[in-house]
Amino acid sequence: MVVELVCVGTEILLGNIVNTNAAYLSEKCANLGLSLYYQTVVGDNEERMTTAIATAIDRSDIVILCGGLGPTKDDMTKEITARVMGRELVEDPHTRERIQAFMDNYIKSQPEGKITANNWKQALIPQGASVLDNHNGTAPGLIIESGGKTAILLPGPPNELKPMFEEAVYPYLRKKQPEIIYSEMVKICGIGESKAETDISDLIAAQTNPTIATYAKTAEVHIRVTAKASSEKEAKQLIKPVVRELKLRFGKNIYTTDENKTLEEAVVELLRAQHLRLTTVESCTGGALSARIVNVPGASDVLKQGFVTYSNSAKKKFIMVKKSTLKTYGAVSSKCAKEMAKGGNFTTGSDVAVSVTGIAGPDGGTPEKPVGTVFIACCLKGETKVREFHFNGNRSKIREQSVVNALILLRDCILENFKK
Amino acid sequence: MVVELVCVGTEILLGNIVNTNAAYLSEKCANLGLSLYYQTVVGDNEERMTTAIATAIDRSDIVILCGGLGPTKDDMTKEITARVMGRELVEDPHTRERIQAFMDNYIKSQPEGKITANNWKQALIPQGASVLDNHNGTAPGLIIESGGKTAILLPGPPNELKPMFEEAVYPYLRKKQPEIIYSEMVKICGIGESKAETDISDLIAAQTNPTIATYAKTAEVHIRVTAKASSEKEAKQLIKPVVRELKLRFGKNIYTTDENKTLEEAVVELLRAQHLRLTTVESCTGGALSARIVNVPGASDVLKQGFVTYSNSAKKKFIMVKKSTLKTYGAVSSKCAKEMAKGGNFTTGSDVAVSVTGIAGPDGGTPEKPVGTVFIACCLKGETKVREFHFNGNRSKIREQSVVNALILLRDCILENFKK
Repeated sequence: MVVELVCVGTEILLGNIVNTNAAYLSEKCANLGLSLYYQTVVGDNEERMTTAIATAIDRSDIVILCGGLGPTKDDMTKEITARVMGRELVEDPHTRERIQAFMDNYIKSQPEGKITANNWKQALIPQGASVLDNHNGTAPGLIIESGGKTAILLPGPPNELKPMFEEAVYPYLRKKQPEIIYSEMVKICGIGESKAETDISDLIAAQTNPTIATYAKTAEVHIRVTAKASSEKEAKQLIKPVVRELKLRFGKNIYTTDENKTLEEAVVELLRAQHLRLTTVESCTGGALSARIVNVPGASDVLKQGFVTYSNSAKKKFIMVKKSTLKTYGAVSSKCAKEMAKGGNFTTGSDVAVSVTGIAGPDGGTPEKPVGTVFIACCLKGETKVREFHFNGNRSKIREQSVVNALILLRDCILENFKK
Repeated sequence: MVVELVCVGTEILLGNIVNTNAAYLSEKCANLGLSLYYQTVVGDNEERMTTAIATAIDRSDIVILCGGLGPTKDDMTKEITARVMGRELVEDPHTRERIQAFMDNYIKSQPEGKITANNWKQALIPQGASVLDNHNGTAPGLIIESGGKTAILLPGPPNELKPMFEEAVYPYLRKKQPEIIYSEMVKICGIGESKAETDISDLIAAQTNPTIATYAKTAEVHIRVTAKASSEKEAKQLIKPVVRELKLRFGKNIYTTDENKTLEEAVVELLRAQHLRLTTVESCTGGALSARIVNVPGASDVLKQGFVTYSNSAKKKFIMVKKSTLKTYGAVSSKCAKEMAKGGNFTTGSDVAVSVTGIAGPDGGTPEKPVGTVFIACCLKGETKVREFHFNGNRSKIREQSVVNALILLRDCILENFKK
């Protein structure tokens, strides 16, 4: 069953709003096992809307349209879709009543407001269409079936569209799609995308069902394994050997197989499981590492303290970096990173501390230490590891890579400690 | 000049990522006065990509494609566009060199890594295309001109796409558009979008040339004033009285009229101009405030120290919050926020300190202090101001609003200090 998405709205084409409806609806369709091949955005223009809607209905089984159902002249989605599918518009008494009730209520809270005549346009529906009541606005949703094709019309505002989709559209689509789609996500850190893909190129080449797709993230690779089957049990059985193989190949570089778990969550869980309290000591990342850890609800269980020791004096005063280290090796050095991590534990009494010092640019680079040079250290129970990086990219990219690699080093140290 | 956008990526069709590139590029095209009629998203599928790209090139003058330029087999944007436009692929020695340098740098920090053969695919370019160097990744951008049509290929990751657009594509498109479009941005903080829009509803109703558009950001509103004219001088003259009027209406809530300046940059400039050294003391934001300040190159001039005092013990030990305050009022209280700010200055000897304490959720809320309750304090030269907030939204949204409002309070305090 092939679905397609057509979003209508000049605001989207002008970049005034981000099209979050498209992401929401696409994810829902993917979960339902519906194949979504195209998303189109078109403005409030009769000719271009007609082309976009006719093309979509021609090439797909189900077309979901959002936006353009309001009361103004610009709102033409219903009119054009009805025409493309050969249906007359007729007034729906039920919808007319609902609009009346909604407006009566509105007037109560806005005494100076009034019902403008154009609101009644929203009570017109294509003959034979199913009406989806809108509990959060006046424009109803519509399902039109004709000649084996289905058009589903939804209002544009996300707070009207989402509840309507959950209540009425999801169950409708669920019935249309007997096949189950089930996927698992294998999340890997510390390996680049091209290496990860090369390592499993044989699996990718041989894929049919389940399919394997890789997604590159900063210092992470996510691999989605998706199976189609007639039951969830069967789909899980299809996926199992592939995920087992991925685990064999990527070993401890896999930090989770849970779709919704982030790297910082995995690290916080490890800290919690081993009753380790963490201190962060940041220079070039400026707090972005601790902020990332605090993304995790309940991070307070493991995060003892964070320091942003951006200046040399703060490094000396709060986390015991030696004056001689700063003088001889500089703040961006392996030695300074180590002392920052050690000093973090010493000052706060934590079990593990991770430190970041580097040159994020655009200024501050030298021939010996160009922009992108970053040292990351981790001190766990007296033992300190340090890694040197030379990142590419601009200031924000360098800082983001630093944060992720600090989490990866921290994770590696905890895993090693666990083995002892 | 009609532009069209084609975004390539199965992740977008699966709803794994929100298509923010489309909003970014659309806004830029609107600024340039280019008409954008369609946005299309298509997956990594040869047949459907060919259809989408051929349709776009047929009906528009300029097609901007993003995504699908990477090293893997799935990445086919360049290959298909070249075929549709009748161009052979040839190796570009300059790009090959750049990839070599990028990978050499990468290998330095990942000694067990290696350059996989698929990376060299990125050095192939359509014959006669202009190469846009990628300073943040390996896939270069491309501009292909053929038979009066232009295809502009950009990498998918936003942190590669945006700098490349600013550096190379914007100037290129600027030249294609003979009519001058000139716009100025008035950035406002501390006023909501609906109030801002109501305050200028007369200006919006009367707009023709220049046009006025408002964009809601977190705790900020940006107002773009855009004029079309035959010369930049003429456009500037059209804009001048409107911007003057906006300045009269929004006064000190305007933090900049520079398109590219961020709120944190405006704050860092104020601190620098008044020779003030800052300390941040964060609880629920967990370092996100200091990280935001460190976004600004050269922030080291003004940021003395950042503390993430997530635990009560850290609040007492490092920044002198009284035990009795925590016991009587709790960590999330006006009194605690004030003591955190005062303590920040005391401990580090800075001139100004800003503190944030609150409940970001999802847990930790009580009937008296529900999730979203946040106190933000600022202490400047002994005088302390505190503000109480009740934010809506999830954990990350609450933390983001907290960070922006901390910057706003800090700005207000500095401006007041300046008046003295």
